[in-house]
Amino acid sequence: MGLKALLINCTLKKSPEVSNTEVLLNKAIKLFSEKNVATETVRPVDSNILPGVSSNEGAGDEWPPILAKIKAADILVFGSPIWFGVRSSVIQRVLERLDGTYREADPDTGQFPLYGKVAGMVITGNEDGAHDVAANTLFNLSHLGCTVPPNVDTYWVGNAGPGPSYIDAGGEHHLYTNRTVRYMVENLVYFADLIKQNPIPTNLRALDDLARQE
Amino acid sequence: MGLKALLINCTLKKSPEVSNTEVLLNKAIKLFSEKNVATETVRPVDSNILPGVSSNEGAGDEWPPILAKIKAADILVFGSPIWFGVRSSVIQRVLERLDGTYREADPDTGQFPLYGKVAGMVITGNEDGAHDVAANTLFNLSHLGCTVPPNVDTYWVGNAGPGPSYIDAGGEHHLYTNRTVRYMVENLVYFADLIKQNPIPTNLRALDDLARQE
Amino acid sequence: MGLKALLINCTLKKSPEVSNTEVLLNKAIKLFSEKNVATETVRPVDSNILPGVSSNEGAGDEWPPILAKIKAADILVFGSPIWFGVRSSVIQRVLERLDGTYREADPDTGQFPLYGKVAGMVITGNEDGAHDVAANTLFNLSHLGCTVPPNVDTYWVGNAGPGPSYIDAGGEHHLYTNRTVRYMVENLVYFADLIKQNPIPTNLRALDDLARQE
Amino acid sequence: MGLKALLINCTLKKSPEVSNTEVLLNKAIKLFSEKNVATETVRPVDSNILPGVSSNEGAGDEWPPILAKIKAADILVFGSPIWFGVRSSVIQRVLERLDGTYREADPDTGQFPLYGKVAGMVITGNEDGAHDVAANTLFNLSHLGCTVPPNVDTYWVGNAGPGPSYIDAGGEHHLYTNRTVRYMVENLVYFADLIKQNPIPTNLRALDDLARQE
Repeated sequence: MGLKALLINCTLKKSPEVSNTEVLLNKAIKLFSEKNVATETVRPVDSNILPGVSSNEGAGDEWPPILAKIKAADILVFGSPIWFGVRSSVIQRVLERLDGTYREADPDTGQFPLYGKVAGMVITGNEDGAHDVAANTLFNLSHLGCTVPPNVDTYWVGNAGPGPSYIDAGGEHHLYTNRTVRYMVENLVYFADLIKQNPIPTNLRALDDLARQE
Repeated sequence: MGLKALLINCTLKKSPEVSNTEVLLNKAIKLFSEKNVATETVRPVDSNILPGVSSNEGAGDEWPPILAKIKAADILVFGSPIWFGVRSSVIQRVLERLDGTYREADPDTGQFPLYGKVAGMVITGNEDGAHDVAANTLFNLSHLGCTVPPNVDTYWVGNAGPGPSYIDAGGEHHLYTNRTVRYMVENLVYFADLIKQNPIPTNLRALDDLARQE
Repeated sequence: MGLKALLINCTLKKSPEVSNTEVLLNKAIKLFSEKNVATETVRPVDSNILPGVSSNEGAGDEWPPILAKIKAADILVFGSPIWFGVRSSVIQRVLERLDGTYREADPDTGQFPLYGKVAGMVITGNEDGAHDVAANTLFNLSHLGCTVPPNVDTYWVGNAGPGPSYIDAGGEHHLYTNRTVRYMVENLVYFADLIKQNPIPTNLRALDDLARQE
Repeated sequence: MGLKALLINCTLKKSPEVSNTEVLLNKAIKLFSEKNVATETVRPVDSNILPGVSSNEGAGDEWPPILAKIKAADILVFGSPIWFGVRSSVIQRVLERLDGTYREADPDTGQFPLYGKVAGMVITGNEDGAHDVAANTLFNLSHLGCTVPPNVDTYWVGNAGPGPSYIDAGGEHHLYTNRTVRYMVENLVYFADLIKQNPIPTNLRALDDLARQE
């Protein structure tokens, strides 16, 4: 099929510090490889992504090469830790910058650059907040053009309150997480291939024109 | 194609009281009809849906016939007003009852009854909260087995604070809402047909077995 | 001081079924009693609370007696389970009905009936979602007039995925939950007493008049 | 009373670019001044706040001077735009850094540095999301030690979909926003003074000890 998956690890920790989220992302990478899907990982915190909502914020902005990788992928898997019950400042920054893609729509169809891609979500946190992170992020990505297949989020969280993180808690052996990472990869690959073979024909421009006549 | 769409209007108002959400749902119905998709609307507040998380809560429970309609549909469109910034108690009740479908998985594939369906969201509120309603609901439905195509939520909200609702505010002429209801119907129908012709082959049971061996 | 605390258990389970949330609420009740705060518990699912957003929805509506208890209390502690990552349909229904109190403002000060009360939150779920439940509910209550002291939420959740609930998991021995229920009671009682002795003087009507002149 | 209010404008735009949120914050500043409350504004995007969850992330980190101002204030008002339905990456970064204050608890009482402060929230966005931003942020601040009085959030958002922002839309004349900014200032000042005169006596350490004995 020649599918490409990009894994975007939105940890707060710069390389080479150990990222819990990376360890769970690596499980997904292994599964993608078994299906002959090429994978690449980016870690936005290692780059100087300027604040803003355009695709290029000028001198010193290290977002454009990351955006190029996003545009080249068929499958996008976002990784995020949980802080204060919600997604990290790093993934929020990445999403804010993806707002710029709305202004790069195809001149004929009006489809945004992320149309035709599929999206999944990987989360680790020491406790509570995974639903909020996944729900908001997958919804935002659906606005940007991604399709969200069933069961494409996987997460590990511990029980209530502060506590050990994924690695230290032995989360790698947690059955629920190990099941759902498999569901995620299976469904992402199936839908990425399906959409690649059957590109979404929707012409947003034409629909806009009809709406204007109402 | 023979597709069927079920629109589930989770207003707080019993029939025949006028529902703002229904008026926007009716725009979707008109568009579905133009594509030869059969539609049916249910209004859960008119039924006595007992509290609980199973598919049948016993004597007096009027959930089973609604669930049967949900299972028979290819496309599910949930409608909800916004109260206190989040989705209504009626749609929350409906989702709680859908929890029961997890325990009705296909014995061979482990797929839940909502696998293979596509889901969309229609929201009206006099102000703020549509993102929260749509994000949580579409995410919950993706857990239950639904696919979420791009741009399958449409909403109308007024500006900050109390104010007129969709009908009284002339929301029917709001361009953004009229555009997005068209995006929603177009993409729901395309994906419903695509999935019907290419059923999701994922075997959740087999993946569970592999996960147990880790 | 003569303080009264009302605990509102928004479980989905009717009496006498065992409620996990009730067991954690009972810890709070014991601590309130040690401080000579009178307590009473209501379980809304046992009453027929009609859908709507007024304080009385007519024949058969069993909300008015619950509202009367809410108005008579100094301290409100809401209990809720987590379903699909968010608060229960029962607590959402209760909040929708509290919308009616906005229209019962004091004719002189414009203060709503919940002004001067303090609010806390108790949550049990088998996993993830407590932050979302507490954040939305305490925020809604602050709109209705309640003060939210520091550290007035307490919760128990297990780790990722389905699993045993509070009672079966031995959550009663979970240190984080046992600490935070104590923080909650301590700060609720301190602030309830402080506000009772120093009633909030804010005149919302007068502020409205000033805003209208801008 | 000698109260000090710090306004933290978490816009994505660096000075001197015009910030919509700043214009609404300035309304609050004017009202604080009328009550002889000293005010200061910080704009975190102008500083190099390193990613992390401690109070000092080392060389080049410009968070410590902002944290010092936060600790010195009696009243904290956070300002944020809305992006993708939720709070900005800048305010999320600020909150992540405030996580470090949990580890600076008073050795006797265990109270965190933000105990005794009151918090409010100012939001502008071109549409939908204010409830989510305010609910999460005020809840997070209550965990950190702040008290949340009634009606201490104020926001302006336009109706559904992209559109003009606060300034261009004439939001400065929006009655709901002009009323609620007054409610916010009035209640923040009343509670800041009340708590200053009646410091919260709660000994978190002692409560921890009792919980450990359970």
